[in-house]
Amino acid sequence: MNDSHHKVKQNEVSGVQCTRHLSSAAPQPSVQNVKDPKTGIVLINMGGPGTIDEVHDYLLKIMTDRDMIQLPVQSQLGPYIARRRTPEVQKKYSEIGGGSPILKWTKRQGELLCEKLDVLSPETAPHKYYVAFRYANPLTDVTLEEMEKDGLERAVLFSQYPQYCCSTTGSSFNAIYKYYKDRKVPPGIKWSIIDRWSTHPLLAKTIAERIRTELKEFPESIKKDVIIMFTAHSIPLKVVNRGDAYPSEVGATVQLVMKELGYCNPYSLVWQSKVGPLPWLGPFTDESLKGYVKQGKKNFILVPVAFVNEHIETLHELDIEYCHDLGKELGIENIRRAAAPNDHPIFIDGLTDIVLNHLKSGPRISPKFLTRCPHCTNTRCEMSKSWFAQLCSQQ
Amino acid sequence: MNDSHHKVKQNEVSGVQCTRHLSSAAPQPSVQNVKDPKTGIVLINMGGPGTIDEVHDYLLKIMTDRDMIQLPVQSQLGPYIARRRTPEVQKKYSEIGGGSPILKWTKRQGELLCEKLDVLSPETAPHKYYVAFRYANPLTDVTLEEMEKDGLERAVLFSQYPQYCCSTTGSSFNAIYKYYKDRKVPPGIKWSIIDRWSTHPLLAKTIAERIRTELKEFPESIKKDVIIMFTAHSIPLKVVNRGDAYPSEVGATVQLVMKELGYCNPYSLVWQSKVGPLPWLGPFTDESLKGYVKQGKKNFILVPVAFVNEHIETLHELDIEYCHDLGKELGIENIRRAAAPNDHPIFIDGLTDIVLNHLKSGPRISPKFLTRCPHCTNTRCEMSKSWFAQLCSQQ
Repeated sequence: MNDSHHKVKQNEVSGVQCTRHLSSAAPQPSVQNVKDPKTGIVLINMGGPGTIDEVHDYLLKIMTDRDMIQLPVQSQLGPYIARRRTPEVQKKYSEIGGGSPILKWTKRQGELLCEKLDVLSPETAPHKYYVAFRYANPLTDVTLEEMEKDGLERAVLFSQYPQYCCSTTGSSFNAIYKYYKDRKVPPGIKWSIIDRWSTHPLLAKTIAERIRTELKEFPESIKKDVIIMFTAHSIPLKVVNRGDAYPSEVGATVQLVMKELGYCNPYSLVWQSKVGPLPWLGPFTDESLKGYVKQGKKNFILVPVAFVNEHIETLHELDIEYCHDLGKELGIENIRRAAAPNDHPIFIDGLTDIVLNHLKSGPRISPKFLTRCPHCTNTRCEMSKSWFAQLCSQQ
Repeated sequence: MNDSHHKVKQNEVSGVQCTRHLSSAAPQPSVQNVKDPKTGIVLINMGGPGTIDEVHDYLLKIMTDRDMIQLPVQSQLGPYIARRRTPEVQKKYSEIGGGSPILKWTKRQGELLCEKLDVLSPETAPHKYYVAFRYANPLTDVTLEEMEKDGLERAVLFSQYPQYCCSTTGSSFNAIYKYYKDRKVPPGIKWSIIDRWSTHPLLAKTIAERIRTELKEFPESIKKDVIIMFTAHSIPLKVVNRGDAYPSEVGATVQLVMKELGYCNPYSLVWQSKVGPLPWLGPFTDESLKGYVKQGKKNFILVPVAFVNEHIETLHELDIEYCHDLGKELGIENIRRAAAPNDHPIFIDGLTDIVLNHLKSGPRISPKFLTRCPHCTNTRCEMSKSWFAQLCSQQ
């Protein structure tokens, strides 16, 4: 198994050193060919438009998902915003190679994971992975239909967000509930859920390795001054104040990565991708870079810590907007970006370890998953959680 | 070594089961009698008024500390607020036994820690602990003076806040800098700093043990439904948005405790003790209890996760205001509070392990400590950090 993360561009612009991990670096996975699968591993994620033409539908699905975003008169305002934002978002996707590489990376991860599981857990083999995206193909509904035809004995719903957030993992699980709400759940399948894994040691180890790789590229004399900036998608403060676990789980991953690195460098956790006028959790990635530059800092590594694949926020926001454009504007000497976990062998071992432990010793659903945020008012969560409690206690 | 945490009151009021861990439970430590100490371990914490008469001075020191709180015309408004709040805070201290037990617990911890260090690290013995409080006796300045007389070879500044916050640990370190700014640092001492330890496995293990102790008290049939509510002192959102590491380090401790417990119960991280009109990090402990009660939850354990001793916020806010008064008001069936680490044997082993590793393999100061928050505008931090960099590179 090889780590097929490639750096395809090295730019030196006005003294700004920056690396880019373009979408084309994602390897083409082989076609899955599993006869009579016994165990299905459903890889749950948000997904991204595979082509420019899919951008509008993708935005529309986000803008009308009330678990992700709440707008006034959402059924009208959502489609309006989606339409209006399409050209600008299409431009961004065209700048990273014409589409999101999330599907390619997810397939690659699924393939490597199932290969390992077949060897390490013959009693649950053959394993087959399924991709269930929330906003892009393959969509959750289509995947669930496909699964039904395969006659599985066991299905593991495996969130690919290491840290749980109601807007992401929560939304995907609510979508699964919604699909089955008015349908018969296929009989004979034993279902279970892996909903979060922010403290898994091999996740921390993978991210630490990604950072070490970038640190090596800095001149020896300044290596120790490089600021490691962990960056995660921000969320609105009203989500934080509702009691969403996301910020605290992201914090946990950060601390464990630094522990793995022996606290070798200064570091900070910052938040990116805020949209809209409401207050979001800060400090923000771009503003923090500005703040550090004001303090005389000149060397940085940006580290995506809450998404396991390259995607628009790493390839465009971090690589192009921050490392390249903002780096140039601020006169930063060296700024690099650590690759997402992608198919790093340690990461694949981590995914495998998580599923193996889950299959062997459960529990099939966690008490935390079944408990709503202290200030949750989302009735979808209430209904979905009771439904999953029942689903995961059958058989 | 015994765990001398005692529950001194068991109340059953209108169906609310609650435990209280009164200050009198802190054991009287023996008088330190170290001849020619070689290594000083400076236990840094905020402190609390030992008697009712000390309350005003304590509040005054807090209200005029610009690292802790920033007020307009602070030199006048600070003393005014301190005076005005004194009677109400005195009443609270009188309700928990007439004073804060922080000093007693800290001395007990220091004593047990140094006993262990003397055995396990004879090459750095004899070890002597010093208590350096920020707002109550023994004050940092007085302790530093005492240390100078002892002719130490080595001094370890050991923050007793597991999670770093600029308002707490940061303020104490700035106070040490301020003390030495216009004074000669005593020659011959090799200084070093332990500034944070939120992910130490024995801290997680101690808190997990404290939770297990409380879980045992719930009837078997409802044990699995008990919500574990980790609670930490909140901070203003402007501190969060400046990039303070505190929320993410608290989050890390929470996740590691739940991992230690095998995610046995539902849990949540909430924030307490907000003061003033500005927005603070939520959700708040009392409001979250109300939220969960609305969802039909009836069994809780409150777990202090960011302070290692019983103090006013555990003994009064959690025990009296939330577990007792609010519990009764909300008709909660069972609410218990996990004890602070205090002198739990696993916790003392943890403190020992932290100091031992620090003495053996350093580093004497961490790159994280030396780096300011991305949006720091506090010139005291800037000066203090450069001074500590120098202090910890001497010898």
